[in-house]
Amino acid sequence: MTTGRLQGSVRVVGAGLIGTSIGLALTKLGVAVSLTDASPANVSLAVDYGAGVPAGEGDNPSLIVVCVPPDVTAVTVRRELENFPSAIVTDVASVKAPILDELAAAAADLTRYVGSHPMAGREKGGAASGRADIFVARPWVIATQPQASAEALQLVEQLALDLEAIPVRLSPLEHDRAVALVSHTPQLVSSLLAARLVGANGVELAGQGLRDTVRIAASDPKLWVQILGANAPEIVTVLKSLESDLGAVIEALEDLSKPGALATLDQTIVNGNRGVESLPGKHGSRISQYSSFVVMIGDQPGELARLFNEIGEVGINVEDLKLEHSPGAQIGLVELSVLPSVGDRLVSELTARGWRFA
Amino acid sequence: MTTGRLQGSVRVVGAGLIGTSIGLALTKLGVAVSLTDASPANVSLAVDYGAGVPAGEGDNPSLIVVCVPPDVTAVTVRRELENFPSAIVTDVASVKAPILDELAAAAADLTRYVGSHPMAGREKGGAASGRADIFVARPWVIATQPQASAEALQLVEQLALDLEAIPVRLSPLEHDRAVALVSHTPQLVSSLLAARLVGANGVELAGQGLRDTVRIAASDPKLWVQILGANAPEIVTVLKSLESDLGAVIEALEDLSKPGALATLDQTIVNGNRGVESLPGKHGSRISQYSSFVVMIGDQPGELARLFNEIGEVGINVEDLKLEHSPGAQIGLVELSVLPSVGDRLVSELTARGWRFA
Repeated sequence: MTTGRLQGSVRVVGAGLIGTSIGLALTKLGVAVSLTDASPANVSLAVDYGAGVPAGEGDNPSLIVVCVPPDVTAVTVRRELENFPSAIVTDVASVKAPILDELAAAAADLTRYVGSHPMAGREKGGAASGRADIFVARPWVIATQPQASAEALQLVEQLALDLEAIPVRLSPLEHDRAVALVSHTPQLVSSLLAARLVGANGVELAGQGLRDTVRIAASDPKLWVQILGANAPEIVTVLKSLESDLGAVIEALEDLSKPGALATLDQTIVNGNRGVESLPGKHGSRISQYSSFVVMIGDQPGELARLFNEIGEVGINVEDLKLEHSPGAQIGLVELSVLPSVGDRLVSELTARGWRFA
Repeated sequence: MTTGRLQGSVRVVGAGLIGTSIGLALTKLGVAVSLTDASPANVSLAVDYGAGVPAGEGDNPSLIVVCVPPDVTAVTVRRELENFPSAIVTDVASVKAPILDELAAAAADLTRYVGSHPMAGREKGGAASGRADIFVARPWVIATQPQASAEALQLVEQLALDLEAIPVRLSPLEHDRAVALVSHTPQLVSSLLAARLVGANGVELAGQGLRDTVRIAASDPKLWVQILGANAPEIVTVLKSLESDLGAVIEALEDLSKPGALATLDQTIVNGNRGVESLPGKHGSRISQYSSFVVMIGDQPGELARLFNEIGEVGINVEDLKLEHSPGAQIGLVELSVLPSVGDRLVSELTARGWRFA
């Protein structure tokens, strides 16, 4: 008896990080999960971790989740649709339109296919990194396409909900454009910026701003070459618009006395302001609604606990926080973001308790 | 009697955020501080906050700190050198070579001048935002130039140390190149990226990676137009190298079958990895040496305190942390970074206490 929404059994194809994590989460809910993978060793490992049982003859899954690399996703989805003529099939690849196109070209039964994309992952892949919780509170794109049956759409959405993800319906092309914008382009921009630092002098002046901007530049090259290659046309569109604006900034900086040069710089920063404001904040509110304060703490165990204890005593909820480093210093800086209405109280209460603000 | 290194009195020219903060910190140490500003109201406000006394006839400062906007810094430094022929003069402008050039062209007495740049600031300017602590544990560039006397260099370094900053000696040109790289270019890149989001669809898919990359794009346009304009040639050098690599990435994505296209993408991400690794981490260690884990917490006051209490009980020091948002979800994700040697213990101890890892 399952405690989730999904009824019937689920077949997971590909026992890597995502497949194993799905298996773990569904098994916890009491859903019968069978696992298969090109590598039997992967299946054994995922089964050992408790992600389900090995797939066998006579399995009759109502839902099949294809969790294989992007370059073999379409062919795998097609084979599963053929081998299990009454099952609904989804996949979790990070690009959606090319897969749908490939399936359509191969005359696959698209009434039973709904692509999806859980916006979740971990730095390390593989079954051993699988966790039942990686989807919790993350967006899970349901790639709507006109030929899919209502039943197929509903079943894939139930999967997302059972895994505590937030289903977001988008067409395959809308999805690919959105991830080019919010994920693939930022990765490339961050990498291109970080590459300037190689062998450069003065990096000891780097502050938190640079560190935040290049954090994702630490990502895995092998994985990203595949992701970028699969969504190349949509990424090119975004990069070209950025390239054009970058050219205008360079031109402005090369001759500041030229009419419009300062306006170009101003507009660049203003447009950036507007872009940040357009991001949804916590619980749908806007990032810019928070007030931020920087508290200094000593660099030993227990200091953060003491700080958050005292904030808790005062009954103030911290909406966001960040720990800053200072190379060589035995002091830490904690940036606390709170609702503006409690900002003054936060400062006065913490100051009264001896905390120093930077 | 002062408790710091600086002996003699200090004259602060410009009672804005930085000038007032310097006055507050030095006054706390018992140093006699006199303040002047083009606006008498600014002086009154800074004096009211406790940053010193109004400058008067017969003042005989041993050190003068010029804290006025970049475009009037050189002329102010020159006037101070002339009016106080036995004082050492420094400034805090965010660009150093153009100011030195202007002073040299005006035949100012460069033996008594050492430029500097405290890498500190707050989102809001003005005397009212001044805090004695804003320089603590931040780099403070001492811009070395051959004509400066040893006494001048020492006095400015003592100022930085008294304010608990970390003095970093660089030539003016080295400084300007370094800030173009670690501050000015990241600002523009972040702004240019964030500008793509204006009016775009699918921003609800944005994750922490994008949020980090565009965080500084929320900066003040007015301030930044002046900063960028003052260091334009050095910024152009960095932006052009980025522009060239961006062009290569676009070319690769436009035709992935072209020889070398995939290698270009791979090299872009690899170089980004190397750039991030070249940043100094906390206490001089490297960022990549930490292990990161994501813990789920409920979204109510006290949850963070409970988490950090229990981490403190276990005696583990958190090296870095970050709170992630999930739009619409009543759950928070805290990313904890710890030394790899205590990672397993962190997970097992927190799991035993009922915490869930994502």
